Amino acid sequence: MNLTNHQFRLAARPVGTPKRSDWTYVEEQVREPADGELVVKVLYISLDPAMRGWMNEGKSYVPPVGIGEVMRAFAAGRVLASKHPGFKVGDYVSGVLGVQEFAVTNGAGLRKVDARLAPLPVQMSTLGMTGLTAYFGLLEIGKPRPGDTVVVSAAAGAVGAVVGQIAKIKGCRAVGIAGGPEKCRSIVDELGFDAAIDYKREDVKKALRTHCPKGVDVYFDNVGGDILDAVLGELARGARVVVCGMISQYNNTGPMKGPSNYRWLLVNRASMTGFLVFDYAERYAEGAREMAGWMAAGKLKSREDIVDGLEAFPDALLKLFNGENQGKLMLRLADA
Amino acid sequence: MNLTNHQFRLAARPVGTPKRSDWTYVEEQVREPADGELVVKVLYISLDPAMRGWMNEGKSYVPPVGIGEVMRAFAAGRVLASKHPGFKVGDYVSGVLGVQEFAVTNGAGLRKVDARLAPLPVQMSTLGMTGLTAYFGLLEIGKPRPGDTVVVSAAAGAVGAVVGQIAKIKGCRAVGIAGGPEKCRSIVDELGFDAAIDYKREDVKKALRTHCPKGVDVYFDNVGGDILDAVLGELARGARVVVCGMISQYNNTGPMKGPSNYRWLLVNRASMTGFLVFDYAERYAEGAREMAGWMAAGKLKSREDIVDGLEAFPDALLKLFNGENQGKLMLRLADA
Repeated sequence: MNLTNHQFRLAARPVGTPKRSDWTYVEEQVREPADGELVVKVLYISLDPAMRGWMNEGKSYVPPVGIGEVMRAFAAGRVLASKHPGFKVGDYVSGVLGVQEFAVTNGAGLRKVDARLAPLPVQMSTLGMTGLTAYFGLLEIGKPRPGDTVVVSAAAGAVGAVVGQIAKIKGCRAVGIAGGPEKCRSIVDELGFDAAIDYKREDVKKALRTHCPKGVDVYFDNVGGDILDAVLGELARGARVVVCGMISQYNNTGPMKGPSNYRWLLVNRASMTGFLVFDYAERYAEGAREMAGWMAAGKLKSREDIVDGLEAFPDALLKLFNGENQGKLMLRLADA
Repeated sequence: MNLTNHQFRLAARPVGTPKRSDWTYVEEQVREPADGELVVKVLYISLDPAMRGWMNEGKSYVPPVGIGEVMRAFAAGRVLASKHPGFKVGDYVSGVLGVQEFAVTNGAGLRKVDARLAPLPVQMSTLGMTGLTAYFGLLEIGKPRPGDTVVVSAAAGAVGAVVGQIAKIKGCRAVGIAGGPEKCRSIVDELGFDAAIDYKREDVKKALRTHCPKGVDVYFDNVGGDILDAVLGELARGARVVVCGMISQYNNTGPMKGPSNYRWLLVNRASMTGFLVFDYAERYAEGAREMAGWMAAGKLKSREDIVDGLEAFPDALLKLFNGENQGKLMLRLADA
């Protein structure tokens, strides 16, 4: 194989927001696959808030990316060469392939994607990890009942947009918290949320009282920080808070801000539960199948925010933390 | 009735730790009971951390005590006069009777106590609200399984001491966090905890690693603050945190400290659930019966810290916040 690969490798552990110099951009030849390995041409790379956590030293649910290693990322691609019995040339696959153009892998954690079912970007967003995070987090941890008020933060983001739409499908009132009038408009007008709160312009606490007069039954939290505190103060009796992310804190250089309003858990007999989609791996197919059905029925819309070119990676990643993306953020390296 | 009553009424909303001047000590005649009312001679008054919360303005699970009102407190006493069909002279009763020597009440929330079953102080501690808080909080929210490691803070306090003992009864490893060598010795030597951590002298995080090598499966939290943060960092996968109290924060004049380590809920797929014993009112008898059985079998010890005289109230209450009490703190006004 005479192929040149480009990669982003982690050069330094970021302090605060990741900088261009926290990466090295490496060019190298793609090596021949050994027995049991395959070579994947990466087509789309998923950009996720969790990536920021993987760059930090210390114990977490997965080991950190090592200095000098290719940056970890979910991606989808096409098999170019295979000495692996489970994959053949031309197969579409998805898994942790890294921020690079070509991946040589032993296939661990890789799954085949049926490209005829839906376009690859949709399979990486609403029918992939992102949608599955919304699906299992909301349904298994949030346990929404018809008539419940479901609030979700980062509501115009990849996970949040799906959470709100599933809440509507389940007969709940869906209220989204997002930054800026355009995001707020779009989640109501395009995605069917009942209401939106613009945290950049509104007093979130007051707005919650307006839009959730009976309190918040389920809060799906992607952001942490002040917004989490505001929602904790408006919980209904027996509310469930799904701790899916805390993006407002990921680039903190000081101590993490804990929810100082957590005493409302006690007052309202409410719970706050951490959630990782990986625990539902055996049920991914079930979740994707149900969501594909909702998409086919026009009840669930998938939105992607696609940036072209591997070299855009360091800047594109920052869109997640600047709140610039709408829908699932990903890099497109090639179409096929 | 020619009886003189003494009472502590709330004079001001405390800023920080309650001061003597936050109360007025009032003397007044006991009025005749109207039809449907009864007069109770108060014998024991329960002093509980929750009382600090009742003194604050603002929304909570019960309305605050009004300025000028008799301070709210659980108490037990004997019926002196009755125009209520459900109670007769000589009955022992318990309920919210207030910080006073005599209560005239319509009987709402009052229940009869069979004084032959156990001494009144035991019925107000281990077989009363305190023990029931430990019982339902640990068993219903903590859901301990045999072999689990259960950690409890304020472990030498009224609730904590019962939590640890029930954990042992249920086949768990019980680790208590308490302040000072005497408390730590007593929960191990007298109550059978497996280990104690002296938060005043030890690095709690390090000590947790020593005593909970497989992580903490259940954390029953009475204190909040730095100790909650330390335990959150040592949770096992799927751990349950019972939020029963946050005494370290009750006298805060600044903003409440939230658990800045709450991200470990996510990493460990753990939950943190607020709990109020009142939700289990229909099952109080069941809980008290089971605990009475454990006491009879010598598996559960009740400890009371009894202070004499109504006038001691303002100082006695502070023992809760100074960490001076061991076991259930109460005032004794009279023996019968």
